[in-house]
Amino acid sequence: MAFSEAELLAVVGSVFESESSEAVLVGIGDDAAVVRGSAQQVITTDVAVEDVHFSKRWSNAFDIGRKVTAANIADILAMGATPQYLVVALTLVGDEGIERVAELAHGIKAEADKSGARVVGGDIARGSAISIAITAIGGVEHAITRSGAKVGDGIYISSLTGWSAAGLHLLENNIEPIHAVHAMALNEFRAPSLDYGIDFSRAHALTDTSDALLISCQSVADASGVNLHINPEQLESAYEFTELSLLAQSVGVDVFDWILGGGEDHVFLATGIDLPGIRIGEVRQGSGVTGLEMKKAPQMWRHFQ
Amino acid sequence: MAFSEAELLAVVGSVFESESSEAVLVGIGDDAAVVRGSAQQVITTDVAVEDVHFSKRWSNAFDIGRKVTAANIADILAMGATPQYLVVALTLVGDEGIERVAELAHGIKAEADKSGARVVGGDIARGSAISIAITAIGGVEHAITRSGAKVGDGIYISSLTGWSAAGLHLLENNIEPIHAVHAMALNEFRAPSLDYGIDFSRAHALTDTSDALLISCQSVADASGVNLHINPEQLESAYEFTELSLLAQSVGVDVFDWILGGGEDHVFLATGIDLPGIRIGEVRQGSGVTGLEMKKAPQMWRHFQ
Repeated sequence: MAFSEAELLAVVGSVFESESSEAVLVGIGDDAAVVRGSAQQVITTDVAVEDVHFSKRWSNAFDIGRKVTAANIADILAMGATPQYLVVALTLVGDEGIERVAELAHGIKAEADKSGARVVGGDIARGSAISIAITAIGGVEHAITRSGAKVGDGIYISSLTGWSAAGLHLLENNIEPIHAVHAMALNEFRAPSLDYGIDFSRAHALTDTSDALLISCQSVADASGVNLHINPEQLESAYEFTELSLLAQSVGVDVFDWILGGGEDHVFLATGIDLPGIRIGEVRQGSGVTGLEMKKAPQMWRHFQ
Repeated sequence: MAFSEAELLAVVGSVFESESSEAVLVGIGDDAAVVRGSAQQVITTDVAVEDVHFSKRWSNAFDIGRKVTAANIADILAMGATPQYLVVALTLVGDEGIERVAELAHGIKAEADKSGARVVGGDIARGSAISIAITAIGGVEHAITRSGAKVGDGIYISSLTGWSAAGLHLLENNIEPIHAVHAMALNEFRAPSLDYGIDFSRAHALTDTSDALLISCQSVADASGVNLHINPEQLESAYEFTELSLLAQSVGVDVFDWILGGGEDHVFLATGIDLPGIRIGEVRQGSGVTGLEMKKAPQMWRHFQ
């Protein structure tokens, strides 16, 4: 490597080191971390691989760290839980400058801090490709799963989906960002901001939409044994729909492709009564996802017919 | 890939799927797993990369799964904790047969079962190299760290170290296994058996020796602010020392190179009063590791002088 293992551990360790706390009894440095647990723990893991899930052509190391961390934190929040602890397993190629690795660690820490979670351990290995595997652990009193949707519930999203896909489209097609709306899309792609502010604690069913809104709707419908009927007019009257729609039009894309099939937004999808966020439909008896028959949301949608 | 993502998830999921239990409230399939927690949780993560930490030239997929899992479980046991939950993030290249992936999953499950831990979640990505990142979570009442060694403690190992290094040496030098002792070494390298049986719960300090016995001794000395004085005669009278020593002699290696510097054994190192296992020395006032000056354990040892 361009740096020794010891240097690397010192740099990354110093980023994550923080004063000992009530919650973390033994931090980085022993065989394992020891932390205060909760009666119910929520656990999730996600691995991101360079040039598959992220690319240094499009994002700096700080944003990559934030994005991968946000993906894990989103899964904890999507269970109605509070993020508490993270462990990070990094595989590096060895040609990264140590500054870039430190930047990545700072990005991970920035998102962790925002969520209230602490990085309590990790591992670094050398490989032929860069990958970042993060495990996030949270505490919860009553987990909200995908299977709790009830007939009569409203369907809500925490914010409009599709922005991340729009950002990727701009990058892939070398479209120069000239408007604020371009910058917004790029930013959502590079380091999506998680919807921490929304209170979905009264939701009956909850999930995140990182795979794509349509896939998430389908998974809630399947898990709950109900029909999710989407109302496109409600989507069209959503905050920011006009901006996203004009952007889509300007680059010749059907905006519903991005909204329904885009993915990587880390927006939350909930069902329940009088929830905050954007109402996009209602839960009915039946199965599957309906209401979008008039929209051409081509490939994704056909897949689910 | 030679198989679709859905096929893959179905196969791997079915390996880990098991009846719901008191401990696992929500298993694989939602945004995150929900499990019963403990007042104190122990968390560790380890990533293993093909051709760095394991190789299909030397091990089958089942053994690789066992070995990587054992490395994580060892870190939980090395805190005096009980393994409870595992999550597995797999990066695959795409040319693996689905049977090989299933074998790997079965290997992970076999070691998890042995330890009493359950695989409750995971992620699969495609990359340019195979890697396996596992996070293990355990419960503990009183964690045993590396920093508890007290002057006057005996130093103990759960079994003789060096067997895994011996196995690697045989493989790297294409030495035909003709004796039972060869087979033993190969087996310890391919899928080291964890010393589950030993009761180190009364230990003052505890760690595993996967990096190398000498490094572990050094880390306990540093963390505890004491001197670890090793008695080579005690090592020489250890169970299996003669077999390992004869094997080393037959291939022209100093057996203490394997014992002190080999690593990857997942033997436990403890200090305390009247512990089980093999007594190898005592804790004294001072610092560092002493007692081995007469032994030529060349590279490793010099590194610590």
